[in-house]
Amino acid sequence: MTLTIEKTDVKKQAMMAKKAAKTLSLLTTEQKNKALHKLADHLDANYQTILDENEKDLQRGREKGFEEAFMDRLSLTKERVEDFANGLRQVADLEDPTGKVVSDWTLENQLQVQKVTVPLGVIGMIYEARPNVTVDATGLALKSGNAIVLKGGSNAITSNKAIVDVMHDALEQTDIPKEAVQFINTTDREAANELFTMKEHIDVLIPRGGGALINAVVNNATVPVLETGVGNCHIYIDKEADVEKALNILINAKTDRPAVCNAAETVIIHEEWFNEHKDALTEKLAGYNVSIHGDEKVTAAIDGAKPAGEEDWANEYLSLDIAVKVVGNLDDAVDHIEQYGTKHSEAIVTENEETAKRFMTLVDAAALYHNASTRFTDGGALGFGAEIGISTQKLHARGPMGLPALTTIKYMMHGTGQIR
Amino acid sequence: MTLTIEKTDVKKQAMMAKKAAKTLSLLTTEQKNKALHKLADHLDANYQTILDENEKDLQRGREKGFEEAFMDRLSLTKERVEDFANGLRQVADLEDPTGKVVSDWTLENQLQVQKVTVPLGVIGMIYEARPNVTVDATGLALKSGNAIVLKGGSNAITSNKAIVDVMHDALEQTDIPKEAVQFINTTDREAANELFTMKEHIDVLIPRGGGALINAVVNNATVPVLETGVGNCHIYIDKEADVEKALNILINAKTDRPAVCNAAETVIIHEEWFNEHKDALTEKLAGYNVSIHGDEKVTAAIDGAKPAGEEDWANEYLSLDIAVKVVGNLDDAVDHIEQYGTKHSEAIVTENEETAKRFMTLVDAAALYHNASTRFTDGGALGFGAEIGISTQKLHARGPMGLPALTTIKYMMHGTGQIR
Repeated sequence: MTLTIEKTDVKKQAMMAKKAAKTLSLLTTEQKNKALHKLADHLDANYQTILDENEKDLQRGREKGFEEAFMDRLSLTKERVEDFANGLRQVADLEDPTGKVVSDWTLENQLQVQKVTVPLGVIGMIYEARPNVTVDATGLALKSGNAIVLKGGSNAITSNKAIVDVMHDALEQTDIPKEAVQFINTTDREAANELFTMKEHIDVLIPRGGGALINAVVNNATVPVLETGVGNCHIYIDKEADVEKALNILINAKTDRPAVCNAAETVIIHEEWFNEHKDALTEKLAGYNVSIHGDEKVTAAIDGAKPAGEEDWANEYLSLDIAVKVVGNLDDAVDHIEQYGTKHSEAIVTENEETAKRFMTLVDAAALYHNASTRFTDGGALGFGAEIGISTQKLHARGPMGLPALTTIKYMMHGTGQIR
Repeated sequence: MTLTIEKTDVKKQAMMAKKAAKTLSLLTTEQKNKALHKLADHLDANYQTILDENEKDLQRGREKGFEEAFMDRLSLTKERVEDFANGLRQVADLEDPTGKVVSDWTLENQLQVQKVTVPLGVIGMIYEARPNVTVDATGLALKSGNAIVLKGGSNAITSNKAIVDVMHDALEQTDIPKEAVQFINTTDREAANELFTMKEHIDVLIPRGGGALINAVVNNATVPVLETGVGNCHIYIDKEADVEKALNILINAKTDRPAVCNAAETVIIHEEWFNEHKDALTEKLAGYNVSIHGDEKVTAAIDGAKPAGEEDWANEYLSLDIAVKVVGNLDDAVDHIEQYGTKHSEAIVTENEETAKRFMTLVDAAALYHNASTRFTDGGALGFGAEIGISTQKLHARGPMGLPALTTIKYMMHGTGQIR
């Protein structure tokens, strides 16, 4: 089986998206919500077409011998398509993030100033072979009044194309122009790279996927990027940590879903706590099949612990492995996190409020936890309704990004002829 | 006279700033304000030293034959140093932008979530030969809990060094480590360029100056940039524009301070209004010595109007010249602004509210004016107290940037052992 690739003209598509974004910016919340429901209903009605096309991606995947987890993410079912549709209905229920007056005041000369939220314009979404992102990102973009240009992973291209075709059919029955959703229908990497530098037509790029994909975008884009994702997260167990809390939090953060970005990769332990509780720690980790990689103090104290090197401190395992470091005080823990952390999610376990406060002030990350698992850094878990990704940058948006992250502001001034 | 340049190690300076930023993040508002007052008092007390050093820059400037406006901006007086000091005292009076709980909520499992404003960390300020920026930027950075690395224009290096020396002496008597203010004491451009890629040590770069400087930073930096400044601003005179308002706003936006970024560069006029009022327009512009560059309709109708080309539409004149374009409808005006505008400040003059609303929705810019001059896009004029620049980008901050633009947020979670 060969994959037919249509010729695409990425720049033309981006320009059409920009034009459609203007129409979108004039629509009411009701018009946008009605369109999202139409998209959802149409996906439900046409699930079989989508599954048929998905089977072609799956067939290619089987031929290429992709691993099970990958095939599972790629594979669609009637229920999964229903989940996509219900996701769109949930986004329709969320508050419209645009048109909100953030603040307003009147100058002495009676000029009225309003700071109002508005759509960003055109969002370029670059993601891996996960068809759910095609629907999720489109729903969030349209609800926030943005057009979207979708470039998904090659291995899901047939599924994505089918989903977008269904959405385009649905949009023709709404007030949103179908040009507001553009799909880059090629497996050619050069086409995706064209998006990186289209500052005039794309307002922001959002990469969603593994470290390699994110770095490719961050390092090559001149279009502003909302950087998402990589989480080399730490749990710091202070000398005043409650043993039960510490072990439960560590096990949850490490083993609940080891492959996600908010999972813990390193535990840093105060020397006093380590000396007193190392047996309980070892037993607990062994009970969950977690392999220990440790510094010299750890390998000396724990049988079977492998020595940890630079690689262990610097990278995500995304598996049932953990790096263990023993420190003499909190500031050494903070320094280690500064050196190796990715500014995602960091936790301290301690019964001392002052110690917790110092840790949470000094550690530079999107989400800081005192006596809780890092696993809560997630739009769903935090009650955001929907998320487009988790920002690990400091500008614009930090942490889980919901609809407000897809807006900017305008200062709107109303006068009667005021001059300076 | 030759200029002695000390060897500098920019990376080491940035690392010192990063370390100092940690100490700063632990300080109270009172400690920061006390330090700002100490800086102000010390500048007042040591103005003569600063003037003596400034004279060396001026001497070099005279030898190089710089133009008067440039020399004026470079030149310091006792009064100007007093203004610097008073600016710092005003910043001390402003509300601390950090430590504000933007929102907070409690999850069903009783995990407490707070979204709190925090300093960005280290700000890299890259600017032209204007010693006032050295003081203004330092004051805003310190008040918002940030360390700052200063790289000013070579032609003011001796003045800037003197100012920083005085500030360093003052900081030694405060709780702010003097390493929080780093001065790149070299005229070597390579040193400045080193700042562009120090993602680990610099959190954000703010270029302040002309288009060439800003583009050099934007195009070469991998550190996130807060893009400031270039304003190719338009006034659109609708067919339903009041004549007096239109002419007054146009003259003010063009002639009040032609060299600033919020001055108007092009006026777009609805054909009906143009045909009816072209004589009044011509007379008014002539009265203020404004030269007209126009499209074919304009040159045909107005004696002495020069033909406008691509250059006229695309660039800032920053002088008493104006480009004039006649359009058949509002959407053509919007399209022209989309093509040539810099997303800074755009105005419409009309008595029709619906027309104004459409213009302000469709035009993509930081500041939109209905019946008022573009000249109000300015932190001072809008009552921000102080500004670090005017953002022409959409992410993070847009329009005049006050203290809040120098902060980011942290999600702070307080639990009792919550796991997922």
